[in-house]
Amino acid sequence: MQTFGNPEKLEWIELGNGQRRKIMAYNDQLMSVLVNFEDGAVGADHSHPHTQLSYVLEGEFTYHIGDDVYTMRPGDSIVVEGGKVHGCACVKAGTLLDVFTPMREDFIK
Amino acid sequence: MQTFGNPEKLEWIELGNGQRRKIMAYNDQLMSVLVNFEDGAVGADHSHPHTQLSYVLEGEFTYHIGDDVYTMRPGDSIVVEGGKVHGCACVKAGTLLDVFTPMREDFIK
Repeated sequence: MQTFGNPEKLEWIELGNGQRRKIMAYNDQLMSVLVNFEDGAVGADHSHPHTQLSYVLEGEFTYHIGDDVYTMRPGDSIVVEGGKVHGCACVKAGTLLDVFTPMREDFIK
Repeated sequence: MQTFGNPEKLEWIELGNGQRRKIMAYNDQLMSVLVNFEDGAVGADHSHPHTQLSYVLEGEFTYHIGDDVYTMRPGDSIVVEGGKVHGCACVKAGTLLDVFTPMREDFIK
């Protein structure tokens, strides 16, 4: 559990393919994660049992859930049900705030 | 369920006491909500069974969970366990992104 998340005191985790992640505040039920994308980076299709919410802090993304496609700009948010295949392409470099329930155990191993 | 939330197409709900709320994307498991505070507005102490995460989009807040006090500025996030008494005072006008699990049925009645 990390009750408080100050981004200046937390490290980026390099993911390759123009993406990096910073784990912010979390407990068992919720986890907040910054995901930074370079121009043109692609978050490949994937799924997980966790429900996810993405909020665009900066940049522009083409986000899809199954066959539904959404253009997302700063201030936009989207919710993805657990188990649904989703992915995104970064049209303009920027950052998503992703929130998961339950927290992503696999992110802190 | 509201899969996608574009803030320009959603309405503020006035709460009084210098606060207003905008319901963004949600499903049963997660709900995202913008909460806008005027300078000096106070989010009174309260609790709810939902786990909550707050992310500061703009402004400055003194946030407390029980007796623990946190100064929160843009980019900071905090997680509040269900049932814990929490509240905040707005030091500089701004907006929180609050995320709840499960969603807040009481917000959409």
